[in-house]
Amino acid sequence: MSTSSIAPETGPVLDVIPLGGLGEFGMNMLLVAWEDTAILIDAGAMFPGPELPGVDLVIPHLEGLAERVGRLTAVVLTHGHEDHIGALPYVWPLLDGPVYGTPLTLALVGPKLEEHGLNPADRLCEIAPGDTVTAGAMELEFIRVTHSIPDCVAVAIHTPAGVLVHTGDYKFDQTPLDGEPLDVQRFAELGRSGVLALFGDSTNIERPGFTGSERDVVPGLDEVFSHATGKIVVAAFSSSLHRIQIVVDLAVQHGRKLVFAGRGVLQNTEIAERLGHLRLPAGLRIRESEIGGYAARDIVCVTTGSQGEPRAALSRIAVDDHRHIGLEPDDVVVFSARAIPGNRRAIGRVMDQVARRGAQLVDGERSPVHVSGHGSAEELKLMLSLVKPRHFVPMHGEYRYLAEHARVAARVTGGHTTVLLAEDGDVIRLAPGPGRIEGRIATGRALMDGTRSAEVGADVLRQRRHLAADGVVVPVIAVSRDGLVEGIPDVVTRGMVIDARTGALLETLPAMAADVIRAAGPDQRIDPAALTEHVRRELQRVFRKQAGRRPLVLPVIMEI
Amino acid sequence: MSTSSIAPETGPVLDVIPLGGLGEFGMNMLLVAWEDTAILIDAGAMFPGPELPGVDLVIPHLEGLAERVGRLTAVVLTHGHEDHIGALPYVWPLLDGPVYGTPLTLALVGPKLEEHGLNPADRLCEIAPGDTVTAGAMELEFIRVTHSIPDCVAVAIHTPAGVLVHTGDYKFDQTPLDGEPLDVQRFAELGRSGVLALFGDSTNIERPGFTGSERDVVPGLDEVFSHATGKIVVAAFSSSLHRIQIVVDLAVQHGRKLVFAGRGVLQNTEIAERLGHLRLPAGLRIRESEIGGYAARDIVCVTTGSQGEPRAALSRIAVDDHRHIGLEPDDVVVFSARAIPGNRRAIGRVMDQVARRGAQLVDGERSPVHVSGHGSAEELKLMLSLVKPRHFVPMHGEYRYLAEHARVAARVTGGHTTVLLAEDGDVIRLAPGPGRIEGRIATGRALMDGTRSAEVGADVLRQRRHLAADGVVVPVIAVSRDGLVEGIPDVVTRGMVIDARTGALLETLPAMAADVIRAAGPDQRIDPAALTEHVRRELQRVFRKQAGRRPLVLPVIMEI
Repeated sequence: MSTSSIAPETGPVLDVIPLGGLGEFGMNMLLVAWEDTAILIDAGAMFPGPELPGVDLVIPHLEGLAERVGRLTAVVLTHGHEDHIGALPYVWPLLDGPVYGTPLTLALVGPKLEEHGLNPADRLCEIAPGDTVTAGAMELEFIRVTHSIPDCVAVAIHTPAGVLVHTGDYKFDQTPLDGEPLDVQRFAELGRSGVLALFGDSTNIERPGFTGSERDVVPGLDEVFSHATGKIVVAAFSSSLHRIQIVVDLAVQHGRKLVFAGRGVLQNTEIAERLGHLRLPAGLRIRESEIGGYAARDIVCVTTGSQGEPRAALSRIAVDDHRHIGLEPDDVVVFSARAIPGNRRAIGRVMDQVARRGAQLVDGERSPVHVSGHGSAEELKLMLSLVKPRHFVPMHGEYRYLAEHARVAARVTGGHTTVLLAEDGDVIRLAPGPGRIEGRIATGRALMDGTRSAEVGADVLRQRRHLAADGVVVPVIAVSRDGLVEGIPDVVTRGMVIDARTGALLETLPAMAADVIRAAGPDQRIDPAALTEHVRRELQRVFRKQAGRRPLVLPVIMEI
Repeated sequence: MSTSSIAPETGPVLDVIPLGGLGEFGMNMLLVAWEDTAILIDAGAMFPGPELPGVDLVIPHLEGLAERVGRLTAVVLTHGHEDHIGALPYVWPLLDGPVYGTPLTLALVGPKLEEHGLNPADRLCEIAPGDTVTAGAMELEFIRVTHSIPDCVAVAIHTPAGVLVHTGDYKFDQTPLDGEPLDVQRFAELGRSGVLALFGDSTNIERPGFTGSERDVVPGLDEVFSHATGKIVVAAFSSSLHRIQIVVDLAVQHGRKLVFAGRGVLQNTEIAERLGHLRLPAGLRIRESEIGGYAARDIVCVTTGSQGEPRAALSRIAVDDHRHIGLEPDDVVVFSARAIPGNRRAIGRVMDQVARRGAQLVDGERSPVHVSGHGSAEELKLMLSLVKPRHFVPMHGEYRYLAEHARVAARVTGGHTTVLLAEDGDVIRLAPGPGRIEGRIATGRALMDGTRSAEVGADVLRQRRHLAADGVVVPVIAVSRDGLVEGIPDVVTRGMVIDARTGALLETLPAMAADVIRAAGPDQRIDPAALTEHVRRELQRVFRKQAGRRPLVLPVIMEI
């Protein structure tokens, strides 16, 4: 491995290409390519907002990747969050080699592959922090970092052209719950021996200071346990297993029985307990169905639903639609999570339902019952100071976060680092010659409809938005073989507001449709597609002019 | 006017009924009714989120109001924000008497009525703080309050059963820009002489302390003016005329020319200047088209678009699609507003575009360039202490805000106030007898499609959501008069993802549809509606089972 300080001007090419996560929060995916070796760091997905109706999952477009490198030598998963592992089933067909990840990460991704009918078999390779594996011309070294889910790593990619460091998601938790701190020495050693490029998480660049340890939530939660006279319900991400451990420990201290509710919490705690990431004293946990046998003040419940997901356990509890768990005025509901932007309205609705039941709300956005898993500005600066890279690329964030991280990096590193502000699809060429952005590959967001099926194209999405905003009108017209209208055309609508003007128009529409066909030229009449398009355009115009509306008009012209 | 301290047990009824704003932010509307006198305080609207496709405006359902009181004696508008005036055109047909408001409020609502083809004529009656007018059996007294828009009032409603105080939106701005402070003495006098019930704004109940004066943004904005080496673009609500005045004053101090961009800013500043609420020194303002004649460092621009509205001036500027205004790396864009929940993603997109142009961002959520127009917890407590009402009803907010305001009020007022935690539609009976909630009227949200037209019903909305999520399939089947299938059925789809399974299914669907009709019983065959429903249900089932999809199936069965 060479980390020569003078970059040769010719020789093989080292390219790094972000496929996702540089320009948005989510769908993190970074390609590192040197000759025949192509390593993908993370294969993440993101969840669509209501502006993408009928879309279940968003992942990076993979065509550009496939064209650029053909096959992948290996995939590295830095940790088990959806925005780092959720696209693996879609990447799978491109992969020739192993998927590297820690035991917890692989335990979370395995069932996802099986759901897609893929057999992970011996392709999932467990690694531990400190391990180094060879992948083609590169060596992959895993470094412990701390985050909101256990068992996270950063990765140092030792390439023939120099060392790249990918931080994954991290914060400097100096008192981690599992006693596994971020390996600050190893980052320092790498920095000392020379790092060609650092790729750093930008999520919390806009927050000043240090984020603080996961343990910082203990006093806030302990206060809830100390004062609650009824049931305590803690809503958290089901992957926040440190947080769940803290609730477990407080349940023991305060003599409450523990209930897990919601599929995600049940699945993840089962996995975490099996792998030693969750320590549950015997006799502490009871089933949901046993809750009736205890006083409310003897119960703490950990649930899904901190983001207001309508079918999550908390949402059902809040509207008294849960089989075993209800809410009474003495109960306390703790939102031990931040609100992901876009989820605020949904969370507000659940909070309102909780307030309607008279229960007390403790909101992680206002009370010290939540702490972020991402380092704040001072931590991101510290990483830059430790690694002292020759090049720095901010990753993980919307563009303004990357831009701010770039500005901060320029201040921290002085002149010795070249900051490259890249976006998804940019080809970051780190060798030969000085690092720069050189060209782009095709990229974008693939909108998946149904977790194991097809992509929602731009046309389909446009049609859906049109249908949602204005509804659909289907005029049905029978014509004879020689193009004459037979009988009286029929009209069906869905999703359309029928007011006086629209109603009157719909009454005259069949006759109008017949007129349009009668008035059509002979060329249009013999070409059914042209005739349909002509009728569509004419009726759409009539709707716009006479009723001020723009429904999707879908004429059916039937030859009989 | 009697304000007897012992409520009589019999006699006429004084009812207060919130139609909107108690259970949501927006569409504020409160009915006060005594015998034949029915006064509506505010007639507000709210804007729909993406979960309401094709809906342009949300207002309270008015049927319950119409049933309850028949006609309205008068409407009072406390100030000119949409969530207090936006529903007036829809209330108009119920109104026999005048609409009371300050000059600015009426100047903002007038064009709205005209847009709806209504003639305000002499029905809009200007009032000033300190005025009292008679409306049926009540007297309406207007009291100056301070808020983010000028010319705001609270209203004291002197009824035969006692005085009601409605705060409107307010904060205790002790140094208001226009020198018109909240009339703290009048609230105190009313409190001293006895108030039957206070209806108080709850918007900022979750914020501790005092909100602070509108002037508090001056140092933050002044710093931007002092350091900016390029153009300054300030995005603000077009109704935030105090804020715009501050920018005007800073432009004068720092020797920059002023440009207004965006329809709302142009309209509102024209009105405000005419009414004396905005003072623009001669020669300060230039047109957008004149911008090219000045250096960037000599320009400050006030625009619409602080909420990321895609067609607002700022959104167009940010993507370099504005005819006269562009962005360069030295420019500064100030978001001098808070992000309304639900708008964060859209605002983020605009901020990203600004960052892409290299301009600097100053975000009102992080920098001291924005201050709220609503009082924080200590101000809301102060209002309770001043007015010392016999009853208190929290208003303006989602349920958890009302509940928190109720809790705070119970602490502040000790035992002397009865707190009534009401929601939209609750009948708050304040006489005869002790105040209590007694029954409900029909209420809800009317979803308006097109600003002057029809209501989007629950069915239409359900269909739109279905269309948006899954698309539509239209199988067209011709049958003879005796119910036999003629020719080959046709199928049209829109908004549907066609993958391998769906594609295969669509190929066989025509034959399947024909089979379903052939297999239908004779009863179904002679009833076209029953036959269509039967086909719909069968094909929907086939889609679900064979392709795992749930499109809206809209069969057209045509008798020929």
